[in-house]
Amino acid sequence: MELKSEPPRIILVRPQMGENIGAAARAMMNFGLRDLWLVAPRDGWPNEKALAMAAHATPIIENARVVETLEEAVADRTLIYGTSARLRNATHHYLLPEEAVSQVCMQPKSAILFGAERTGLTNDELTACHGLITIPTDPEYGSLNIAQSVVLLGYLWWRGRESYSLPEDAIPLAEAGEVEALYRHLDEKLEHSGFYLTEERKPSAKRNLRAMLARFPLTSHDIQTWHGILRAIGGKTS
Amino acid sequence: MELKSEPPRIILVRPQMGENIGAAARAMMNFGLRDLWLVAPRDGWPNEKALAMAAHATPIIENARVVETLEEAVADRTLIYGTSARLRNATHHYLLPEEAVSQVCMQPKSAILFGAERTGLTNDELTACHGLITIPTDPEYGSLNIAQSVVLLGYLWWRGRESYSLPEDAIPLAEAGEVEALYRHLDEKLEHSGFYLTEERKPSAKRNLRAMLARFPLTSHDIQTWHGILRAIGGKTS
Repeated sequence: MELKSEPPRIILVRPQMGENIGAAARAMMNFGLRDLWLVAPRDGWPNEKALAMAAHATPIIENARVVETLEEAVADRTLIYGTSARLRNATHHYLLPEEAVSQVCMQPKSAILFGAERTGLTNDELTACHGLITIPTDPEYGSLNIAQSVVLLGYLWWRGRESYSLPEDAIPLAEAGEVEALYRHLDEKLEHSGFYLTEERKPSAKRNLRAMLARFPLTSHDIQTWHGILRAIGGKTS
Repeated sequence: MELKSEPPRIILVRPQMGENIGAAARAMMNFGLRDLWLVAPRDGWPNEKALAMAAHATPIIENARVVETLEEAVADRTLIYGTSARLRNATHHYLLPEEAVSQVCMQPKSAILFGAERTGLTNDELTACHGLITIPTDPEYGSLNIAQSVVLLGYLWWRGRESYSLPEDAIPLAEAGEVEALYRHLDEKLEHSGFYLTEERKPSAKRNLRAMLARFPLTSHDIQTWHGILRAIGGKTS
């Protein structure tokens, strides 16, 4: 199977029900998605109910990668979208499914995140995301479950993958691990500079900074530029 | 006429032929776009040929704002897209017309830029843009002219304006003038720090920095944060 676009990684973050993991795998199978990662599944792994529900998608369940932290699951990803049933924090960049998928088609090494069934993605998990996909639905009838959302996004990717391909000379975005390293460099300078006025406000200030960097479409070249800026104007603190 | 989404401003940058200005105005009229700005039109203003071609769109031509620099035309805009017939510099953020329009529908005070007929937007003009809209066409038959592009983008906006509206609690992006002020603050720190290694490389380094800031979806709050960062780690140079 030769595809012009690279299929996105599907990451289920703290999934609760094995049945939902299996159903998500089935939806992935239908639309050419194969790369499933699970972050800290509630009932451990392997999970019999996931396997039973998967049916023809057994290989996806068997090859699923299980990790403890979201950071591990996205470290090599360049474009990371979360899914959210509702508008959350107003500073997020919201996208419709069609928009998000066309960006996914134009970037290698993308990922789409789905939060725990009951709570969705936490604020900390959202700071890993370039943008948040919201699927418009009738507001009177609640939101889609994980597998339904995978069906919809998988279909759009499958349909779009031929039309939207990576521009030949485009520079891909940096991997999430590189962005994290830039955040740590910035944070180190800020710790030394007194930017964090009080200990109390530090955690939310740090979360906001990390979220802001994640929202920016940073290339590896941009990241090197910012390391250079921090070294040039930030003095000898590191 | 009550619209949920605010129509984008149409900005023609250094337009050459009066006929094309008039034809663009006609296309705007068809799809509820009224706000036309011209940056340094080649043949001066008013332009008889523009008026003759405009037909039912005469009011748009009569109310068009004419300015000398692109900076003036975008200073109060929060989301700025350029149009480009082909992939240019690889570091730009490319969007398909549908994606760009749905973002335009979700942001107040947006603008879409069209370059001079012969050359398109220059590299300096591109640094003002959050992203570049490329309209897919048969590569064997060249590109669309300005008015054709306005027809297509205008239609998509007209069709999308009811479905995609500004999320109620979303924080709009900062105005271009605020981003420019942040760039100047950063540049000042960099001038004092020796970041620009040689005079020779300065102009392109500056252009790249300005383009990078324009690509980032910065809110007014983000901009205040970065001013704070520059003050905290950048010492007493200003």
